[in-house]
Amino acid sequence: MTSTATYGTTIGTAERVNREVRLVRHPDGALAVGDLEVVPTEMPVMAPGHVLIRNLLLSVDAATRLRLDPVSPPGYLPALKPGEALAGMVIGEVVESDVEGFAPGDLVHHDLGYRDYALVDPGNQALGVAGALTRLDRELGPPELHVGLLGMTGLTAWAGLFEVASLKPDDVVWISAAAGAVGSVAAQLAKAHGCRVVGSAGSADKVAYLTDSLGLDGAFNWRDGLDEPLAELAPDGIDVYFDNVGGDHLRAALDHLRPYGRVALCGAIAGYDGRPPQAPENLFAATSKDLNLRGFRAGTYADRLPEVRKNLAELWESGQLKLDLARYEGLEAAPEAVVDMLSGRTTGKCVVLLA
Amino acid sequence: MTSTATYGTTIGTAERVNREVRLVRHPDGALAVGDLEVVPTEMPVMAPGHVLIRNLLLSVDAATRLRLDPVSPPGYLPALKPGEALAGMVIGEVVESDVEGFAPGDLVHHDLGYRDYALVDPGNQALGVAGALTRLDRELGPPELHVGLLGMTGLTAWAGLFEVASLKPDDVVWISAAAGAVGSVAAQLAKAHGCRVVGSAGSADKVAYLTDSLGLDGAFNWRDGLDEPLAELAPDGIDVYFDNVGGDHLRAALDHLRPYGRVALCGAIAGYDGRPPQAPENLFAATSKDLNLRGFRAGTYADRLPEVRKNLAELWESGQLKLDLARYEGLEAAPEAVVDMLSGRTTGKCVVLLA
Repeated sequence: MTSTATYGTTIGTAERVNREVRLVRHPDGALAVGDLEVVPTEMPVMAPGHVLIRNLLLSVDAATRLRLDPVSPPGYLPALKPGEALAGMVIGEVVESDVEGFAPGDLVHHDLGYRDYALVDPGNQALGVAGALTRLDRELGPPELHVGLLGMTGLTAWAGLFEVASLKPDDVVWISAAAGAVGSVAAQLAKAHGCRVVGSAGSADKVAYLTDSLGLDGAFNWRDGLDEPLAELAPDGIDVYFDNVGGDHLRAALDHLRPYGRVALCGAIAGYDGRPPQAPENLFAATSKDLNLRGFRAGTYADRLPEVRKNLAELWESGQLKLDLARYEGLEAAPEAVVDMLSGRTTGKCVVLLA
Repeated sequence: MTSTATYGTTIGTAERVNREVRLVRHPDGALAVGDLEVVPTEMPVMAPGHVLIRNLLLSVDAATRLRLDPVSPPGYLPALKPGEALAGMVIGEVVESDVEGFAPGDLVHHDLGYRDYALVDPGNQALGVAGALTRLDRELGPPELHVGLLGMTGLTAWAGLFEVASLKPDDVVWISAAAGAVGSVAAQLAKAHGCRVVGSAGSADKVAYLTDSLGLDGAFNWRDGLDEPLAELAPDGIDVYFDNVGGDHLRAALDHLRPYGRVALCGAIAGYDGRPPQAPENLFAATSKDLNLRGFRAGTYADRLPEVRKNLAELWESGQLKLDLARYEGLEAAPEAVVDMLSGRTTGKCVVLLA
């Protein structure tokens, strides 16, 4: 692998202009583009023990929405106040460094996305292990791969399947939001593991993508219903449900899981975007069918990232795993990208090319 | 231990009269005494390969309620139709036997309770492993102990704590319905394991029982609220929640669990007795705090019963574990016993003395 020419072009100090994406107001229901704004801001001033980074490729993640309401979920990162800048995973290039192990031109991953330039203290990572400043191995793949498959997206899919749901090759697996970033990786990983995999998504195009492009055993559009397609595509029930949606999707999973089934509670996008949380009324099925519902955050498994990254890179190089990108150009497109991703208009990993 | 004189008195054939408890109609909301009736029925006729049993001590279990509505929960035993006899765990004495290993006078455990006499085919156990015909070791303790602590009640408490919730000595544990059969055993087992244990129950008397008689570290009446007492009794949060109630109790647990906390979903009595299932609206806490919610039925761990029974009998003999009984006299009292137990009017293990 060689890195693409798009990235890593050093620019002169004179050209440096900084901008950041700020929360204008807490969304009233679903996030609107106008709830965010891209504003000029001061260029960060290099400081001892810090690394100055020019951001190149922003990861647009559903979890970002969790910090935009007045209160964030328990155990999660604190809510943002109006006027504060968003944060999020991003790949950048080191411009200046006062930290050993980081040199100008290095490609790095960190958590101060949603801005053109970031000044990072590697010893003070407010966003925790998931956002720690790490140098990227360009040999493993291009930056797009690092922001998705080889980053937290890949780790999330891997941890949910193997650590949380204890996936076995003879499992029948249902993955919701399967055309999304984590879902599409999880679906392909489960296929590569030998499982029968059913995916759901919210449009006919995505359903076609799941069967034709990702090669799933079955796929359906949840807008047409959940129970009938599940009964048809997994007539003997499912063993593992990888939940990216929550709400009625989780309710359907509890109905269709076989005894001793497992649920990886990865995300609950049905409840993120200003919609009231929908609670499954059939949760007692967990008791009557010996089900295991286990929530997780990928950061818990961050120590496994180097090993997982290597495995995923091998699967990618061998063609068993693909990563499709929904690309947006320029920081000014970030608000639209976030809104589109949350409303289900993107397929694959949503990224914003910043430079 | 010797068996008590109350049990095992052989009676003559002439005195044999049989009765059974039948479902009159599906309950309209909470079960009423009049929804059940005790009616004379034919004495079972001894048959080849069968064991004729005189029932002595009936176990009254909350799960019995799950079969009284028109539809039972998924994966559970089928619903009863009006006119059908109830079933349930019971201890009896063998009257006649055509099966090797069972002789007249033997004390046995089986699943055809709610009647005076039962004819059991050990090879055809409709209620599964939990109700399989087993000979009881009178040396381990009196029949009351076998129907509770040394039977499925004890196995349920043990499995929920150690197999499902992976209990560790430094865990802070909350047990709901802690003055009930399973709850009181689970609470004492967690104490014996070294944990800090908080119990909840539905009356001041039960709360006093939990602290004064069972020696829990804290107890509260859920009718006065859940969040304030939990915040006070477990200010740093809880690690394990043993759920016998579901509904708002589970919601409170999700709020008060620490990251990486575990929930043993044992029962959900809040939703059993004609009340609509209450779903926790904060289930996303499972994802944001890496929680594990695991449902289970004790029958899944039936192969561990001999070993668990031995351990529990030792704890009982050493005085570390006690079993209080709510006793009802005669099969004619069974409907009242079931209604009392479901509405929270009993403390400890609810039993009906049949003979």
